Amino acid sequence: MYDELRDICWKHNMMLPKLGLVIYTFGNASVVDRKNGVFAIKPSGVDYEKMKPEYIVIVSLEDGKVVDGALRPSSDTNTHLELYRAFPNIGGVVHTHSTFATAWAQTGLPVPIFGTTHADYLAMDIPCTDFMSDERIQNDYETETGRQITDWFAKHHVSPDEAQMILVAGHGPFTWGDSIAKAVFNARMIEELCKMAFITKSIAPDTPRLKTTLIEKHYERKHGKDAYYGQKS
Amino acid sequence: MYDELRDICWKHNMMLPKLGLVIYTFGNASVVDRKNGVFAIKPSGVDYEKMKPEYIVIVSLEDGKVVDGALRPSSDTNTHLELYRAFPNIGGVVHTHSTFATAWAQTGLPVPIFGTTHADYLAMDIPCTDFMSDERIQNDYETETGRQITDWFAKHHVSPDEAQMILVAGHGPFTWGDSIAKAVFNARMIEELCKMAFITKSIAPDTPRLKTTLIEKHYERKHGKDAYYGQKS
Amino acid sequence: MYDELRDICWKHNMMLPKLGLVIYTFGNASVVDRKNGVFAIKPSGVDYEKMKPEYIVIVSLEDGKVVDGALRPSSDTNTHLELYRAFPNIGGVVHTHSTFATAWAQTGLPVPIFGTTHADYLAMDIPCTDFMSDERIQNDYETETGRQITDWFAKHHVSPDEAQMILVAGHGPFTWGDSIAKAVFNARMIEELCKMAFITKSIAPDTPRLKTTLIEKHYERKHGKDAYYGQKS
Amino acid sequence: MYDELRDICWKHNMMLPKLGLVIYTFGNASVVDRKNGVFAIKPSGVDYEKMKPEYIVIVSLEDGKVVDGALRPSSDTNTHLELYRAFPNIGGVVHTHSTFATAWAQTGLPVPIFGTTHADYLAMDIPCTDFMSDERIQNDYETETGRQITDWFAKHHVSPDEAQMILVAGHGPFTWGDSIAKAVFNARMIEELCKMAFITKSIAPDTPRLKTTLIEKHYERKHGKDAYYGQKS
Repeated sequence: MYDELRDICWKHNMMLPKLGLVIYTFGNASVVDRKNGVFAIKPSGVDYEKMKPEYIVIVSLEDGKVVDGALRPSSDTNTHLELYRAFPNIGGVVHTHSTFATAWAQTGLPVPIFGTTHADYLAMDIPCTDFMSDERIQNDYETETGRQITDWFAKHHVSPDEAQMILVAGHGPFTWGDSIAKAVFNARMIEELCKMAFITKSIAPDTPRLKTTLIEKHYERKHGKDAYYGQKS
Repeated sequence: MYDELRDICWKHNMMLPKLGLVIYTFGNASVVDRKNGVFAIKPSGVDYEKMKPEYIVIVSLEDGKVVDGALRPSSDTNTHLELYRAFPNIGGVVHTHSTFATAWAQTGLPVPIFGTTHADYLAMDIPCTDFMSDERIQNDYETETGRQITDWFAKHHVSPDEAQMILVAGHGPFTWGDSIAKAVFNARMIEELCKMAFITKSIAPDTPRLKTTLIEKHYERKHGKDAYYGQKS
Repeated sequence: MYDELRDICWKHNMMLPKLGLVIYTFGNASVVDRKNGVFAIKPSGVDYEKMKPEYIVIVSLEDGKVVDGALRPSSDTNTHLELYRAFPNIGGVVHTHSTFATAWAQTGLPVPIFGTTHADYLAMDIPCTDFMSDERIQNDYETETGRQITDWFAKHHVSPDEAQMILVAGHGPFTWGDSIAKAVFNARMIEELCKMAFITKSIAPDTPRLKTTLIEKHYERKHGKDAYYGQKS
Repeated sequence: MYDELRDICWKHNMMLPKLGLVIYTFGNASVVDRKNGVFAIKPSGVDYEKMKPEYIVIVSLEDGKVVDGALRPSSDTNTHLELYRAFPNIGGVVHTHSTFATAWAQTGLPVPIFGTTHADYLAMDIPCTDFMSDERIQNDYETETGRQITDWFAKHHVSPDEAQMILVAGHGPFTWGDSIAKAVFNARMIEELCKMAFITKSIAPDTPRLKTTLIEKHYERKHGKDAYYGQKS
């Protein structure tokens, strides 16, 4: 019944080490099937080299419990669950500990929008959550990690369709998209943007953000109503 | 009719990801056929993995319109067009978002000529355009990007044969050459020179430019009238 | 008699260049067989490309002398010996000169615990030994290198099970674990943590350590008595 | 007659791109045959992908003229010649523009001996020549490059056997050894030492040089009269 969902989930998890975004068992990707009220996610602590489609775990969107699968789901499952509930348009979620994005997350700072490569995907700084309060840490930690993310969007009145990525302070990047493929793409993109921003800041620490008119121009030509990047669908 | 031109264009576009200069659909290479008044360029937003020679788009040098091909040309087509018109000796143009060159472009600073590796290809700093004015941004943006480049050469009385590369401030590198192969070579070179300059500046922020006599010696032994680098042609 | 031990030792030594942790003859891995009172270690100065299982040297835990094998053992053999004697729970030891870990060791500073990637493996800074005294250098140098390590753990009342890695000041990383596989894993991990910490410090030199509650949460979910990471064994 | 010498020269030149030390036509390796008074060197400006053993050029040690071969020798041939004449024990010379070594050379600074990885090969800072005087630049430039190197050794009373590498200020690394294989090894090593020193300096700009007793211990255990590293020959 969940064969196809498992296959898609497995295939996109396997892309993470190939894209240089994870080593060993770091990171996880999930894909949602909203019609059936479930999402498929990587099992916890299984090496990518040994991963098989049948190891993928199917989890209920309603109560976060395992619906199908013999293994324990990723320890970050409740973070994915929280995002699927709060962001109704998203189809996939990816979490990695990729080197440059994680190094930025460790500073607790947003990533300044320094150039058009960034503006092509995101018309603002890459957001970074606050550090989690002790009260939340003692609570259901993974659910609260999801809430750190959704709180940021609520507080800043930003839609998760506009910014499909965030750094969790002290932790690492989470990305999403209308599909798991887009979420993986965004995981690769946040790593590249963080690497570029690190180099820019090392060369010239006082580099200002890109001017607003240029940010808007680049974002709009890819995502605006008169977008002209790519092929007509 | 355009089979050969398409093949050359496709082959050199495919070198960009192999040389580590582009990921996903970033970047584009074009090649001009001045006799027939056209140039061949990558289609917009098509993955390198799926690229085929027949997808390459043929564009008129006269009016920038598509002459042949089923797909939309690169969104940067008008920048290429502007360069082919302003620089009559060039045979190919390459644009990438390669990591170190883009990070330098984001600072809006030229890349100081710190060593002989740089002087072997360019007897001056790697130029960087001004940031584009709001007026130009609102205009035909890609044509204006080309004009930012050609303006720099006009203003500084430099020939595009002497400096076959430039950083567009806040954006990234553009390179060219008498052939598309040379333009791709220069795209690889600007990335390496930007990486070296970043490391040099990190080690010793006050490193001065290379002395002029040494710059001229290296540039001349490769490009001067008594050049003795390489094989006699 | 030692065929299996040699095979395990050889296989894990061969992983070091594949993981990008050693070049040429740098680095060495060993595995202990406490029942038989021996450990197997890489021969000294033999290229990885030419390494064969039969070249692995078997050394006595009692007196550090070669028990079996035609070649000289690694020049660092006495450091391994010292660790096996002082740390009764460990099953393998790895030493490399991997780039980022060695660069940190050269500073003589511990690596601050900046994020959860670090806390997943180690609930404290990555320790760094003192620089060795002249007296110790003149003594049996490799044994004294081991003592620099064991002294740190004794002085700071830390168990080598909690911190399975250390930087030897001015030298490089040593890692261990209950198996040689875990020691190799830790060698890869210390390199990644050192790389991330370098980038974090370059972006924001004043980045504080991760808050204690978050360190404990991450360490405990992987290693505490109620750990829920990974699969039930 | 020179078939074997050409083969050795070709094989070691081909290692340079594989070791990540050169791109395109950068860099060159040569090997000397002192008995026959010649050395074999890479032709000038030939791509590594197209290089064949028969392209290697044979040059006289006496007058630097081509003895055998259809192509022009490397433009750096006279630098190699100068080194073979001044350093009678060396068997091979390598010059590259490898990224981190060239970036250091651009600063004009020696590379501080920060750790034992460095001391294993060299008991002093990696030397850097002075910047060349205008008078020398106007003279036979490549011969003078060799003299910048040999002058450093004469002035500092250091033997080229002790320090088998140097940075030419503003240019890049030159290495040598008793064989071309050792010269290639040293070219890889200087790149790694320069990368590590860059990272160390970025983390802690005031890192002091390694203490002398530790430098001597490491250098002696590999190169001293009681060396115990490696296998008995």
